[in-house]
Amino acid sequence: MALAFWYEFASTYSYLTAMRIEAESRSRGIDVDWRPFLLGPIFKRQGWNSSPFEVYPLKGIYMWRDMERQCDLYGLPLLRPDIFPQNSLLAARLAFSGREEGWAPAFTRAVYQAEFGEGRDISRPELLAGILMELGLDADTLLARAGSEDVKAALKAQGAEADRLGLFGSPSFVTSDGELFWGNDRLEQAFEWEARLG
Amino acid sequence: MALAFWYEFASTYSYLTAMRIEAESRSRGIDVDWRPFLLGPIFKRQGWNSSPFEVYPLKGIYMWRDMERQCDLYGLPLLRPDIFPQNSLLAARLAFSGREEGWAPAFTRAVYQAEFGEGRDISRPELLAGILMELGLDADTLLARAGSEDVKAALKAQGAEADRLGLFGSPSFVTSDGELFWGNDRLEQAFEWEARLG
Repeated sequence: MALAFWYEFASTYSYLTAMRIEAESRSRGIDVDWRPFLLGPIFKRQGWNSSPFEVYPLKGIYMWRDMERQCDLYGLPLLRPDIFPQNSLLAARLAFSGREEGWAPAFTRAVYQAEFGEGRDISRPELLAGILMELGLDADTLLARAGSEDVKAALKAQGAEADRLGLFGSPSFVTSDGELFWGNDRLEQAFEWEARLG
Repeated sequence: MALAFWYEFASTYSYLTAMRIEAESRSRGIDVDWRPFLLGPIFKRQGWNSSPFEVYPLKGIYMWRDMERQCDLYGLPLLRPDIFPQNSLLAARLAFSGREEGWAPAFTRAVYQAEFGEGRDISRPELLAGILMELGLDADTLLARAGSEDVKAALKAQGAEADRLGLFGSPSFVTSDGELFWGNDRLEQAFEWEARLG
């Protein structure tokens, strides 16, 4: 029994969730299954060639102001990156490897911190290598593995699963009985739903 | 000093807010300024010819399920209307008259209750007349006034103000110092912001 946390590394609101989900998980005694995925293909099928916050400028203006307020409330740093949305493919491939080895949560937090806490470009392999090394991991091996057919296939299967679940945004949460919750604002409700299944 | 509550009668999540905002207002001692407006023209400029929940089916499927859950949590009835989104023009015009006379809150709640609590069609003048009469109001006079140039001009000015504020969805909340909050989930934060201005 675990709550599945689906996240796209380019997503601003997923940063908020990534930074607080483990505290919620511990206090509630409910495990989290970290599931990186790519929203690009889903957005493309909706006719968007970028983030909805770019496609719809009013929403984008609001989102950045709202992120400032939410980060203030959570005590998180926010430095708006020059590039938005960022290319998250390599980060997602790396995180996918980390799922099996147990370092996906720490890696994910470090990537979001670099992207939205420090405004850095997470598409850069050097930046991601630095994060891996700080976690005591073998960056060269992991970067090579990130380009392997195995990881590509696994990420593609993850995308098929996202489609099956009807995901359309990030963060999303899926309970053990298949209930879908969307958005950082629904994290508590998702945990409460999962708790009732226990 | 008051928190402005901007709402479109066709909006599902605004139903949740309309039903709970007065309790929040009373418990916090902060007045609410009820501001009906039309999202149609704003959506049209974004390239949508309907609600985003119709334009993007995955979001629509999710929204109705989420509404079921939120209504359960708030103890509100939910009966999905056959027509969605509904034509809200006449309801908005009537509510606009009610703003000056003080019956906009009760009228607004009754319209949302009919629309989403009972699944009825709020574009029907007979239905709206029934609501007005239940509130002890002169339905014939008010329906005639709803079609007047004065009300049309006032609603148009309201739309210009919505544009000036950067509104793009409903419900929206605007504090006395111009801070914009979007969505039923942000009601508490909007009140807290307004309270700090007091």
